Amino acid sequence: MNIENIKQKIQKFSDDRAWEDFHNPKNLVMALTGEVGELNEIFQWLDFDECLNLPDDVLEHTKEEVADVAIYLIRICMKLDVDLESAILNKMDKNEKKYPVESSQAGSKKYSKSRENK
Amino acid sequence: MNIENIKQKIQKFSDDRAWEDFHNPKNLVMALTGEVGELNEIFQWLDFDECLNLPDDVLEHTKEEVADVAIYLIRICMKLDVDLESAILNKMDKNEKKYPVESSQAGSKKYSKSRENK
Amino acid sequence: MNIENIKQKIQKFSDDRAWEDFHNPKNLVMALTGEVGELNEIFQWLDFDECLNLPDDVLEHTKEEVADVAIYLIRICMKLDVDLESAILNKMDKNEKKYPVESSQAGSKKYSKSRENK
Amino acid sequence: MNIENIKQKIQKFSDDRAWEDFHNPKNLVMALTGEVGELNEIFQWLDFDECLNLPDDVLEHTKEEVADVAIYLIRICMKLDVDLESAILNKMDKNEKKYPVESSQAGSKKYSKSRENK
Repeated sequence: MNIENIKQKIQKFSDDRAWEDFHNPKNLVMALTGEVGELNEIFQWLDFDECLNLPDDVLEHTKEEVADVAIYLIRICMKLDVDLESAILNKMDKNEKKYPVESSQAGSKKYSKSRENK
Repeated sequence: MNIENIKQKIQKFSDDRAWEDFHNPKNLVMALTGEVGELNEIFQWLDFDECLNLPDDVLEHTKEEVADVAIYLIRICMKLDVDLESAILNKMDKNEKKYPVESSQAGSKKYSKSRENK
Repeated sequence: MNIENIKQKIQKFSDDRAWEDFHNPKNLVMALTGEVGELNEIFQWLDFDECLNLPDDVLEHTKEEVADVAIYLIRICMKLDVDLESAILNKMDKNEKKYPVESSQAGSKKYSKSRENK
Repeated sequence: MNIENIKQKIQKFSDDRAWEDFHNPKNLVMALTGEVGELNEIFQWLDFDECLNLPDDVLEHTKEEVADVAIYLIRICMKLDVDLESAILNKMDKNEKKYPVESSQAGSKKYSKSRENK
């Protein structure tokens, strides 16, 4: 994925419209949330099988919402000077340690998050 | 960004833990939403200046949450067989048409989304 | 539901801690989002039957998150001088018209939202 | 707030349209998330002053989104047999203990959530 190309396009898009001032990380997190809300709306009434067999027009819509989420996420990284690829790789290393293979098999995951959060 | 490498790591991580069955797109959208919630928690009480001048530990935490969002987003794309880079580029082309440069300058954006959604 | 009592408690809680300045609607919407994220985390890996048969501790946790969402929602209404009960009743009237009984039966709802949003 | 009246209206609305089967807690949490996303879209580009001085049409839109969030939240409580008022009061008692007045004054709140979550 040529993320430098995408970042340049995002920057130009914003510059052309003088939207730079709006793109504070706080605002961008809310904009990201709005797009995630739209992604939820697509899947909210579907059962598990339907989610894996989307009609073509719904899949096209899903691609757009996934893209919107990605664009705002990359934009947040640009504003905070975060290298997304490094962040992902570091977090996956951390997850490897947080969820040891032996104790994280299947069913053990189910309620763990809600329990640990309590 | 070597997204193939990331996708392989995500797949192996899930396979090792037998989490594949949990990773239906519906569940993954909810998991994505949970991570976006954590991103909101970081920025919720900060003013605009503070958002651009995060203390080191908060920035590190932000990187982790941004990574979690990215990981679930990539995972959703894997499950739906969506090419994320193409989806982003296509959506940016569409946005170029949706928001013409002339009529989208600065302030015009402010309330437009909430108005058009009504 | 004695919402005046709840509003007074919320106000006193905030006043006692001098949190009033943080409680701008923008911040509160983000705080609400954080709590909704936690609600998603509870249900994200559960199937439909499990969602209706929560273990006691998970149900207790759910009550807390539902309460947090409600508290921030009421707080937003307080800050915007919105009467929540009237808002609910007005919206339900509007929904009655938006989704006529005849054309809104069961299956027709499934993909409609994602389609209409496109 | 006559919540019994609201619950009856919600039940009748759903029954009339045969939407009962869709209203599993998992689906409803996603629907709630969608509405919260729309609330974010309203406030995403606004500064703090603008959030407290919404134009009439934006305030009307906000009322609708706040109502949608409330309706889905009440619906979730109905499905899980949760008494919302008790849940709110219990959580506020818990919050009183979690955030002691002395140690929770103003600024101390700012980054605490993101730090404690780490």
